[in-house]
Amino acid sequence: MNVPEELITFLRSCDDVFIATHIDPEGDALGSSIALSLALGQLGKRSCVFNRDAVPALYAFLPHHRIVTDTAPDSIDTLLLLDCNSRERAGLENANVRFAAVIDHHLTNNGYGDLRWIVPTAPATGLMVFNLVKALGVTITKDMAVNLYTAIGIDTGIFRYVNTSAECLSAASELVVCGADPAFIADRLFNTFSKGRFMLLRCLLETLELHQTVAVASITSEMFADTGTTSADTENLVNFSLQMDEVRVSALIRQVGESSWKVSLRSKGEIDVARVAAQFGGGGHRNAAGCTISGELSSVKRMLLTELQRVSA
Amino acid sequence: MNVPEELITFLRSCDDVFIATHIDPEGDALGSSIALSLALGQLGKRSCVFNRDAVPALYAFLPHHRIVTDTAPDSIDTLLLLDCNSRERAGLENANVRFAAVIDHHLTNNGYGDLRWIVPTAPATGLMVFNLVKALGVTITKDMAVNLYTAIGIDTGIFRYVNTSAECLSAASELVVCGADPAFIADRLFNTFSKGRFMLLRCLLETLELHQTVAVASITSEMFADTGTTSADTENLVNFSLQMDEVRVSALIRQVGESSWKVSLRSKGEIDVARVAAQFGGGGHRNAAGCTISGELSSVKRMLLTELQRVSA
Repeated sequence: MNVPEELITFLRSCDDVFIATHIDPEGDALGSSIALSLALGQLGKRSCVFNRDAVPALYAFLPHHRIVTDTAPDSIDTLLLLDCNSRERAGLENANVRFAAVIDHHLTNNGYGDLRWIVPTAPATGLMVFNLVKALGVTITKDMAVNLYTAIGIDTGIFRYVNTSAECLSAASELVVCGADPAFIADRLFNTFSKGRFMLLRCLLETLELHQTVAVASITSEMFADTGTTSADTENLVNFSLQMDEVRVSALIRQVGESSWKVSLRSKGEIDVARVAAQFGGGGHRNAAGCTISGELSSVKRMLLTELQRVSA
Repeated sequence: MNVPEELITFLRSCDDVFIATHIDPEGDALGSSIALSLALGQLGKRSCVFNRDAVPALYAFLPHHRIVTDTAPDSIDTLLLLDCNSRERAGLENANVRFAAVIDHHLTNNGYGDLRWIVPTAPATGLMVFNLVKALGVTITKDMAVNLYTAIGIDTGIFRYVNTSAECLSAASELVVCGADPAFIADRLFNTFSKGRFMLLRCLLETLELHQTVAVASITSEMFADTGTTSADTENLVNFSLQMDEVRVSALIRQVGESSWKVSLRSKGEIDVARVAAQFGGGGHRNAAGCTISGELSSVKRMLLTELQRVSA
């Protein structure tokens, strides 16, 4: 992966960078942002990492996650958007920005930014930042390595998704040499079932329906209440039914309001669930996407199923 | 990892090698053996791969798995034991062997073999064979790569267990360059729940008991019958409850006879379940071991729990 010379020159010339990433952040957004901020610090530059939302408890193991702030000034001199490519996605729609750089791997983009490095084929923004940090001549510390390994790990399902490349794995190897502990990170990311979350999974399994190659499960507000869990506890649960051989597409529908449902979609191979998410006003990647749909659970399920069966046929 | 010069010289001097691996073979045993046989073929040498038991359906995706034979002659000129280190483990206790070489990463060994390369710190025999094949100057083909990636992948939980090293990951990266498809292999190894197996998991979850940090679940013959599954469908199920944060040790007890139970043990971090397995006449690694216990299910469970709570205290 070649890092644009222009971006390297630009970052070398900056004194103070306002790094921002997408709302509802996950490991790639957080890990990339924190690692890049640490790298800029090593070059003697000031930076901060902004996120409108709080760092989920799942990511409290990330070194320096406390640098993430939810405070943004009205005017931003140099904005660096990471793992997203619009001010809206970062919750900064009203900010006054002088210059914006964008580093992202998402397909959907609206052309925002004065300097754009967007690589939709990159498995994770973390892999782009890994290359950028090396191109900047920064020595990767253990704290950077843990953040970058997590970023790459979460977006590739720790090297299980179709986006896993030889480059991912060799970057991971280098990051382990720099101090990242693969088993510890995997444990933090995937062995994090509290008892409540485990009970939630049991509830979810009871709702699971199989329609040919499409699996649909749902979680109601009542289930959250009964198990003492929240929306944050559903992370990765959508992947569960993909363990079934027959299942090529998995949908997890969770209640977020009286008649509002957040839908997570996952698929295997060539099946494009981003198309389905887009039909309902959402977005994402080919194999991992999401949207929000209003209505009764039964009709939400029916609408989804129709579209999911269409793309997986 | 340094490959002993003696082993390289020896293999270069052989014309015909009888490769054998342990009974009840899994991915590391099979992948290592098949890959090495292919490599020897590239050097113009004859070899065969022996296993007393059949290749499990789970591994039917391994290229050239059909070379594995269950036929052994009474006399073997050059035996190469892979992923085990005694004739008994390979089901060859009665064979007349002229010369035996051993390549293995298991801790327990009884000193068998005329030429021994045993590296207990190696995460997989597959990683040893990867290095050996390169040291022999063989070009790793796609078919070898798939076998070796599978071997390393199964023994490291696809880079999630504590034995995952930088060397593992860089080998994996090289193997992807040689043609191994990480997502396809992960899918074959971990997304292989048939509907029956999925129902078996649901049954298992109903039996799951949590005793502080120890999780114990059981599968009876009746459950196998009800779900139309067999013992082979239990592969990896013991790892399921390790996804719970609190759980440090997991035991899966499955019925193999009227009052005979096969026990699989898994642990996180420093907890040594091989010691517990050994107390019951079994064996294995620190974090993955097994044994067979006779008696009533309730008493088997009680005996196990006492020992597991002792090592995890």
